[in-house]
Amino acid sequence: MISQTAEYALRAMAHLASKPTEPQTAQQIAAVTLVPLHYLSKVLQALARAGLIHSQRGLHGGFTLITPPEELSVYDIVQAVDPIQRIKRCPLGLAAHGENLCPLHKRLDEAMCEVEQCFRASNLAELLAQESSSRPLCPVPMPVTRAAVDLAD
Amino acid sequence: MISQTAEYALRAMAHLASKPTEPQTAQQIAAVTLVPLHYLSKVLQALARAGLIHSQRGLHGGFTLITPPEELSVYDIVQAVDPIQRIKRCPLGLAAHGENLCPLHKRLDEAMCEVEQCFRASNLAELLAQESSSRPLCPVPMPVTRAAVDLAD
Repeated sequence: MISQTAEYALRAMAHLASKPTEPQTAQQIAAVTLVPLHYLSKVLQALARAGLIHSQRGLHGGFTLITPPEELSVYDIVQAVDPIQRIKRCPLGLAAHGENLCPLHKRLDEAMCEVEQCFRASNLAELLAQESSSRPLCPVPMPVTRAAVDLAD
Repeated sequence: MISQTAEYALRAMAHLASKPTEPQTAQQIAAVTLVPLHYLSKVLQALARAGLIHSQRGLHGGFTLITPPEELSVYDIVQAVDPIQRIKRCPLGLAAHGENLCPLHKRLDEAMCEVEQCFRASNLAELLAQESSSRPLCPVPMPVTRAAVDLAD
Protein backbone atom coordinates (compact mmCIF):
# COMPACT_ATOMS: atom_id res chain seq x y z
CA MET A 1 0.00 0.00 0.00
CA ILE A 2 2.99 2.29 0.55
CA SER A 3 4.37 2.77 -2.94
CA GLN A 4 7.98 2.04 -3.77
CA THR A 5 8.44 5.72 -4.58
CA ALA A 6 7.12 6.84 -1.19
CA GLU A 7 9.25 4.26 0.60
CA TYR A 8 12.37 5.44 -1.25
CA ALA A 9 11.60 9.11 -0.53
CA LEU A 10 11.24 8.34 3.18
CA ARG A 11 14.57 6.53 3.21
CA ALA A 12 16.31 9.42 1.43
CA MET A 13 14.79 11.99 3.78
CA ALA A 14 15.72 9.92 6.86
CA HIS A 15 19.30 9.82 5.65
CA LEU A 16 19.43 13.56 4.95
CA ALA A 17 17.92 14.26 8.37
CA SER A 18 20.76 12.29 9.95
CA LYS A 19 23.36 14.45 8.13
CA PRO A 20 22.13 18.00 8.76
CA THR A 21 25.50 19.65 8.15
CA GLU A 22 26.90 17.47 5.38
CA PRO A 23 25.35 17.78 1.91
CA GLN A 24 24.92 14.29 0.51
CA THR A 25 25.38 13.34 -3.13
CA ALA A 26 22.87 11.10 -4.86
CA GLN A 27 25.55 8.39 -4.86
CA GLN A 28 26.02 8.68 -1.09
CA ILE A 29 22.28 8.57 -0.48
CA ALA A 30 21.90 5.56 -2.82
CA ALA A 31 24.64 3.67 -0.97
CA VAL A 32 22.94 4.08 2.42
CA THR A 33 19.31 3.75 1.35
CA LEU A 34 19.93 0.86 -1.08
CA VAL A 35 17.82 2.61 -3.71
CA PRO A 36 18.88 2.21 -7.36
CA LEU A 37 20.62 5.46 -8.39
CA HIS A 38 18.44 6.16 -11.42
CA TYR A 39 15.22 5.72 -9.43
CA LEU A 40 16.64 7.72 -6.54
CA SER A 41 17.50 10.64 -8.83
CA LYS A 42 13.87 10.92 -9.89
CA VAL A 43 12.71 10.76 -6.28
CA LEU A 44 15.20 13.46 -5.28
CA GLN A 45 14.01 15.66 -8.14
CA ALA A 46 10.42 15.30 -6.91
CA LEU A 47 11.46 16.15 -3.35
CA ALA A 48 13.35 19.21 -4.60
CA ARG A 49 10.39 20.34 -6.71
CA ALA A 50 8.16 20.01 -3.65
CA GLY A 51 10.54 22.30 -1.73
CA LEU A 52 11.62 19.69 0.80
CA ILE A 53 15.28 19.44 -0.18
CA HIS A 54 17.86 21.76 -1.65
CA SER A 55 20.44 20.77 -4.22
CA GLN A 56 23.82 22.49 -4.17
CA ARG A 57 26.17 21.99 -7.11
CA GLY A 58 29.94 22.00 -6.91
CA LEU A 59 32.81 20.32 -5.08
CA HIS A 60 31.16 20.01 -1.68
CA GLY A 61 27.69 20.03 -3.15
CA GLY A 62 24.84 17.64 -2.58
CA PHE A 63 21.35 17.49 -1.13
CA THR A 64 20.26 18.92 2.21
CA LEU A 65 16.90 19.28 3.93
CA ILE A 66 15.26 22.69 3.66
CA THR A 67 12.86 22.18 6.57
CA PRO A 68 14.02 20.96 10.00
CA PRO A 69 13.10 17.28 10.62
CA GLU A 70 10.88 18.37 13.54
CA GLU A 71 8.61 20.09 11.06
CA LEU A 72 8.59 17.34 8.43
CA SER A 73 5.88 14.75 8.80
CA VAL A 74 5.85 11.40 7.06
CA TYR A 75 2.72 12.77 5.38
CA ASP A 76 4.61 15.78 3.91
CA ILE A 77 7.16 13.44 2.36
CA VAL A 78 4.66 10.94 0.96
CA GLN A 79 2.49 13.73 -0.44
CA ALA A 80 5.51 15.25 -2.20
CA VAL A 81 6.20 12.16 -4.28
CA ASP A 82 3.13 9.94 -4.42
CA PRO A 83 0.12 11.54 -2.74
CA ILE A 84 -2.43 9.48 -0.83
CA GLN A 85 -5.52 9.36 -3.02
CA ARG A 86 -8.56 10.23 -0.93
CA ILE A 87 -11.89 9.31 -2.55
CA LYS A 88 -13.76 12.55 -3.08
CA ARG A 89 -16.18 11.55 -5.80
CA CYS A 90 -17.81 8.30 -6.90
CA PRO A 91 -15.01 6.39 -8.67
CA LEU A 92 -17.61 4.92 -11.05
CA GLY A 93 -18.53 8.42 -12.17
CA LEU A 94 -22.18 7.74 -11.31
CA ALA A 95 -24.18 10.93 -11.56
CA ALA A 96 -26.54 9.72 -8.83
CA HIS A 97 -23.60 9.34 -6.44
CA GLY A 98 -21.36 12.28 -7.29
CA GLU A 99 -19.84 13.53 -4.05
CA ASN A 100 -22.23 11.44 -1.92
CA LEU A 101 -20.07 8.39 -1.62
CA CYS A 102 -21.83 5.06 -1.23
CA PRO A 103 -21.07 3.12 1.99
CA LEU A 104 -18.42 1.03 0.20
CA HIS A 105 -16.42 4.00 -1.04
CA LYS A 106 -17.01 5.85 2.22
CA ARG A 107 -15.40 2.96 4.06
CA LEU A 108 -12.45 2.83 1.67
CA ASP A 109 -11.97 6.56 2.11
CA GLU A 110 -12.10 6.18 5.90
CA ALA A 111 -9.20 3.74 5.65
CA MET A 112 -7.24 6.30 3.60
CA CYS A 113 -8.10 8.92 6.22
CA GLU A 114 -6.63 6.68 8.96
CA VAL A 115 -3.42 6.37 6.97
CA GLU A 116 -3.30 10.11 6.44
CA GLN A 117 -3.72 10.78 10.17
CA CYS A 118 -1.10 8.20 11.07
CA PHE A 119 1.37 9.84 8.68
CA ARG A 120 0.55 13.37 9.82
CA ALA A 121 1.21 12.35 13.42
CA SER A 122 4.83 11.29 12.81
CA ASN A 123 7.63 13.71 12.20
CA LEU A 124 11.03 12.71 10.92
CA ALA A 125 12.92 13.92 13.99
CA GLU A 126 10.76 11.78 16.27
CA LEU A 127 11.35 8.67 14.14
CA LEU A 128 15.09 9.21 14.18
CA ALA A 129 15.19 9.91 17.91
CA GLN A 130 12.96 7.03 19.02
CA GLU A 131 14.72 4.45 21.12
CA SER A 132 14.73 1.22 19.22
CA SER A 133 17.02 -1.69 18.63
CA SER A 134 17.05 -0.63 14.97
CA ARG A 135 17.76 2.95 13.90
CA PRO A 136 16.29 4.01 10.53
CA LEU A 137 19.02 3.18 8.00
CA CYS A 138 22.12 1.74 9.63
CA PRO A 139 25.25 3.82 9.09
CA VAL A 140 26.94 0.89 7.35
CA PRO A 141 24.25 -1.13 5.64
CA MET A 142 24.96 -4.73 4.80
CA PRO A 143 24.43 -5.79 1.20
CA VAL A 144 21.07 -7.50 0.74
CA THR A 145 22.56 -10.89 -0.22
CA ARG A 146 24.89 -10.88 2.79
CA ALA A 147 22.00 -9.91 5.05
CA ALA A 148 19.94 -12.84 3.82
CA VAL A 149 22.78 -15.20 4.64
CA ASP A 150 23.28 -13.66 8.09
CA LEU A 151 19.61 -13.97 8.92
CA ALA A 152 19.54 -17.58 7.87
CA ASP A 153 22.25 -18.42 10.42
CA MET B 1 -3.62 3.23 -1.96
CA ILE B 2 -6.50 0.89 -2.77
CA SER B 3 -5.35 -0.81 -5.94
CA GLN B 4 -7.47 -0.80 -9.07
CA THR B 5 -7.74 -4.59 -8.79
CA ALA B 6 -9.05 -4.43 -5.22
CA GLU B 7 -11.51 -1.69 -6.13
CA TYR B 8 -12.83 -3.75 -9.06
CA ALA B 9 -13.13 -6.89 -6.93
CA LEU B 10 -15.14 -4.97 -4.33
CA ARG B 11 -17.49 -3.65 -7.00
CA ALA B 12 -18.00 -7.12 -8.48
CA MET B 13 -18.65 -8.65 -5.05
CA ALA B 14 -21.08 -5.85 -4.12
CA HIS B 15 -23.02 -6.55 -7.30
CA LEU B 16 -23.10 -10.31 -6.72
CA ALA B 17 -24.24 -9.73 -3.13
CA SER B 18 -27.16 -7.71 -4.46
CA LYS B 19 -28.25 -10.60 -6.73
CA PRO B 20 -28.13 -13.61 -4.40
CA THR B 21 -30.48 -15.77 -6.46
CA GLU B 22 -29.49 -14.73 -10.00
CA PRO B 23 -26.14 -15.91 -11.33
CA GLN B 24 -24.49 -13.00 -13.12
CA THR B 25 -22.40 -13.30 -16.25
CA ALA B 26 -19.12 -11.42 -16.56
CA GLN B 27 -20.85 -9.17 -19.12
CA GLN B 28 -23.65 -8.34 -16.69
CA ILE B 29 -21.18 -7.60 -13.89
CA ALA B 30 -19.05 -5.46 -16.22
CA ALA B 31 -22.09 -3.42 -17.27
CA VAL B 32 -23.02 -2.54 -13.69
CA THR B 33 -19.55 -2.15 -12.21
CA LEU B 34 -18.12 -0.26 -15.20
CA VAL B 35 -15.04 -2.47 -15.15
CA PRO B 36 -13.46 -3.36 -18.53
CA LEU B 37 -14.50 -6.93 -19.35
CA HIS B 38 -10.99 -8.29 -19.87
CA TYR B 39 -9.76 -6.87 -16.55
CA LEU B 40 -12.93 -8.03 -14.80
CA SER B 41 -12.45 -11.61 -16.07
CA LYS B 42 -9.06 -11.77 -14.40
CA VAL B 43 -10.46 -10.37 -11.16
CA LEU B 44 -13.33 -12.90 -11.21
CA GLN B 45 -10.84 -15.72 -11.78
CA ALA B 46 -8.86 -14.59 -8.72
CA LEU B 47 -12.04 -14.39 -6.62
CA ALA B 48 -13.04 -17.89 -7.76
CA ARG B 49 -9.56 -19.26 -6.99
CA ALA B 50 -9.80 -17.75 -3.52
CA GLY B 51 -13.10 -19.59 -2.98
CA LEU B 52 -15.23 -16.45 -2.71
CA ILE B 53 -17.35 -16.96 -5.82
CA HIS B 54 -18.63 -19.90 -7.78
CA SER B 55 -18.84 -20.07 -11.56
CA GLN B 56 -21.63 -22.08 -13.17
CA ARG B 57 -21.45 -22.80 -16.89
CA GLY B 58 -24.46 -23.18 -19.15
CA LEU B 59 -27.60 -21.36 -20.23
CA HIS B 60 -28.50 -19.80 -16.88
CA GLY B 61 -24.92 -19.89 -15.67
CA GLY B 62 -22.86 -17.12 -14.19
CA PHE B 63 -21.13 -16.12 -10.99
CA THR B 64 -22.61 -16.29 -7.50
CA LEU B 65 -21.20 -15.72 -4.02
CA ILE B 66 -20.17 -18.82 -2.11
CA THR B 67 -20.16 -17.14 1.31
CA PRO B 68 -23.10 -15.07 2.60
CA PRO B 69 -22.37 -11.31 2.49
CA GLU B 70 -22.70 -11.16 6.30
CA GLU B 71 -19.57 -13.28 6.54
CA LEU B 72 -17.57 -11.51 3.85
CA SER B 73 -15.44 -8.64 5.05
CA VAL B 74 -13.90 -6.01 2.80
CA TYR B 75 -10.61 -7.47 4.06
CA ASP B 76 -11.45 -10.98 2.75
CA ILE B 77 -12.12 -9.56 -0.69
CA VAL B 78 -9.03 -7.34 -0.86
CA GLN B 79 -6.81 -10.17 0.42
CA ALA B 80 -8.15 -12.49 -2.27
CA VAL B 81 -6.99 -10.30 -5.14
CA ASP B 82 -4.30 -7.89 -3.94
CA PRO B 83 -3.27 -8.52 -0.34
CA ILE B 84 -2.33 -5.68 1.98
CA GLN B 85 1.43 -5.90 2.39
CA ARG B 86 2.29 -5.71 6.08
CA ILE B 87 5.96 -4.96 6.78
CA LYS B 88 7.34 -7.96 8.61
CA ARG B 89 11.04 -7.59 7.93
CA CYS B 90 13.35 -4.66 7.20
CA PRO B 91 12.59 -3.74 3.57
CA LEU B 92 16.25 -2.79 3.10
CA GLY B 93 17.24 -6.35 3.99
CA LEU B 94 19.56 -5.02 6.70
CA ALA B 95 20.86 -7.90 8.80
CA ALA B 96 21.06 -5.63 11.85
CA HIS B 97 17.34 -4.86 11.53
CA GLY B 98 15.82 -8.13 10.42
CA GLU B 99 12.45 -8.49 12.14
CA ASN B 100 13.15 -5.58 14.51
CA LEU B 101 11.67 -2.85 12.38
CA CYS B 102 13.15 0.62 12.76
CA PRO B 103 10.73 3.35 13.92
CA LEU B 104 10.12 4.46 10.32
CA HIS B 105 9.05 1.04 9.08
CA LYS B 106 7.19 0.37 12.33
CA ARG B 107 5.13 3.49 11.70
CA LEU B 108 4.44 2.54 8.09
CA ASP B 109 3.35 -0.91 9.24
CA GLU B 110 1.06 0.66 11.86
CA ALA B 111 -0.68 2.53 9.07
CA MET B 112 -1.16 -0.75 7.19
CA CYS B 113 -2.49 -2.30 10.37
CA GLU B 114 -5.09 0.50 10.66
CA VAL B 115 -6.22 -0.20 7.11
CA GLU B 116 -6.41 -3.91 7.83
CA GLN B 117 -8.57 -3.31 10.92
CA CYS B 118 -10.84 -0.92 9.07
CA PHE B 119 -11.36 -3.50 6.32
CA ARG B 120 -11.89 -6.38 8.75
CA ALA B 121 -14.58 -4.38 10.53
CA SER B 122 -16.82 -4.00 7.45
CA ASN B 123 -18.83 -6.81 5.98
CA LEU B 124 -20.46 -6.66 2.60
CA ALA B 125 -24.01 -7.07 3.92
CA GLU B 126 -23.59 -4.08 6.22
CA LEU B 127 -22.30 -1.89 3.40
CA LEU B 128 -25.23 -2.82 1.18
CA ALA B 129 -27.77 -2.34 3.96
CA GLN B 130 -26.45 0.97 5.27
CA GLU B 131 -28.83 3.85 4.83
CA SER B 132 -27.23 6.30 2.49
CA SER B 133 -28.25 8.60 -0.30
CA SER B 134 -26.06 6.45 -2.57
CA ARG B 135 -26.33 2.66 -2.65
CA PRO B 136 -23.19 0.80 -3.74
CA LEU B 137 -23.51 0.50 -7.53
CA CYS B 138 -26.73 1.99 -8.84
CA PRO B 139 -28.97 -0.52 -10.61
CA VAL B 140 -28.78 1.52 -13.81
CA PRO B 141 -25.42 3.24 -13.88
CA MET B 142 -24.99 6.31 -16.04
CA PRO B 143 -22.10 6.30 -18.49
CA VAL B 144 -19.10 8.20 -17.17
CA THR B 145 -19.24 10.98 -19.77
CA ARG B 146 -22.95 11.59 -19.14
CA ALA B 147 -22.35 11.66 -15.41
CA ALA B 148 -19.70 14.33 -15.81
CA VAL B 149 -22.13 16.48 -17.77
CA ASP B 150 -24.92 15.96 -15.23
CA LEU B 151 -22.69 16.91 -12.34
CA ALA B 152 -21.59 20.08 -14.06
CA ASP B 153 -25.23 21.28 -14.26
